[in-house]
Amino acid sequence: MVLPKEIPSSAEEYLDSQIHSKLPISSILIIIAMQTEALPLVEKFQLSEDQKSVFPKEVPWVRYHGIYRNLQINLIWPGKDSALGVDSVGTISASLVTYASIQALHPDLIINAGTAGAFKAKGASIGDVFLVSECAFHDRRIPIPVFDLYGVGLKQALKTPNLHKELDFKVGKLSTGDSLDMSMQDEASILANDATVKDMEGAAVAYVADMFKVPAIFVKAVTDIVDGEKPTAEEFLQNLATVSAALDQAVTQVIDFISGKCIHEL
Amino acid sequence: MVLPKEIPSSAEEYLDSQIHSKLPISSILIIIAMQTEALPLVEKFQLSEDQKSVFPKEVPWVRYHGIYRNLQINLIWPGKDSALGVDSVGTISASLVTYASIQALHPDLIINAGTAGAFKAKGASIGDVFLVSECAFHDRRIPIPVFDLYGVGLKQALKTPNLHKELDFKVGKLSTGDSLDMSMQDEASILANDATVKDMEGAAVAYVADMFKVPAIFVKAVTDIVDGEKPTAEEFLQNLATVSAALDQAVTQVIDFISGKCIHEL
Repeated sequence: MVLPKEIPSSAEEYLDSQIHSKLPISSILIIIAMQTEALPLVEKFQLSEDQKSVFPKEVPWVRYHGIYRNLQINLIWPGKDSALGVDSVGTISASLVTYASIQALHPDLIINAGTAGAFKAKGASIGDVFLVSECAFHDRRIPIPVFDLYGVGLKQALKTPNLHKELDFKVGKLSTGDSLDMSMQDEASILANDATVKDMEGAAVAYVADMFKVPAIFVKAVTDIVDGEKPTAEEFLQNLATVSAALDQAVTQVIDFISGKCIHEL
Repeated sequence: MVLPKEIPSSAEEYLDSQIHSKLPISSILIIIAMQTEALPLVEKFQLSEDQKSVFPKEVPWVRYHGIYRNLQINLIWPGKDSALGVDSVGTISASLVTYASIQALHPDLIINAGTAGAFKAKGASIGDVFLVSECAFHDRRIPIPVFDLYGVGLKQALKTPNLHKELDFKVGKLSTGDSLDMSMQDEASILANDATVKDMEGAAVAYVADMFKVPAIFVKAVTDIVDGEKPTAEEFLQNLATVSAALDQAVTQVIDFISGKCIHEL
């Protein structure tokens, strides 16, 4: 998005100007934690991997970029851990790449996409795609007044009523933590967060996006039923590839819908 | 530290060149999560608050800087959460400020200082100061092979045998998590990490420092006994001010020892 002629003085004014801007969205930052989730979208949007990284040479973060339907797409995958070779999942990598990408790329809109767990008691099934209404953490318990709220870290996703009308996704609250499994304390916090969907990155992306007042939406596809019979890790690995395909289809629908629209039209 | 004439090509070579450099340490980055812990050191070292921040204007992070005993000291406090007004504690803020400070300030050495919980079963008492030998996480359970190790995120602190000999601190392993309290699962992971000390930032600072191969040491002063009778939050708040004084004295001793020395002399 071209900056308005009068540059707003505060981040909040900037968000306000973004949301009410009549200029169509031009630059989208997609953050995806796992390579298996990211690569089909890279292919779909015909993105190229950076030859000369916008990030410091020491980090494993990978940027794929290109133009799709008049949108500048930057898809960031935090890459493989340099010592262990596994995807750099979780809140620390997610917050770092969100921070560095906002600094380097100045996106109009962030989309955090990924697979997630969800609760059948809240109506979720394997393969469902959720648009998230709000994000919070479930593993940051700080039982001191006000610090408790900081730990929960509740952030609203961008409101997208027209996107909801157009696309047949479920809507639910997201709770984020750095464990794939769920302890009793995690479960109690997830219930307190009234969350349907559970992931390992969303609230961290939301924290940094909110800091810079960049509108953010969260698209999460369900690989495992948290309150079901099967162990999470097993169910997650079993469904990762097929659900990633559903996720990628959903993200494509979202991007197709966004193309040509302003933030306030979403 | 002045860069060696031949600039090393990789981060590891750089760490190697740092550790074996015969040039004295010139720039130290101190990362402290809470204002109560930070301000006495700001006064002690007569540091000034940045007038023009080296960080983006949207973040609450505060840099205090100055020269103390020929050392360029940058003390970074992540500041107050802009919505809630409490210190930005925990791993996300710690990793973000470590990342942004390394990028902006290129320190020779990082010192993460702070108050912490500790285990009396491992010989700790209130007011003890620990030099940390290694850091790991206790709240990132990912029960998939290799991802489990990524979750634990074990990183070594810089080895400082001479500092140990000179100063009468205890030595122990540190375990980091985003909760002030401790669930059964946290406790099991802390035991598996063989940790004596428990904090909310150390392993996150270690993760980013390791990424950029900046040597890091961790100085932690005990505010609460995790395996004791009193509730952690109550004991923590009761001891925060007095133990912060012990912490600041310890950090001063460490900085005094560092002054004029190379990394490999620590």
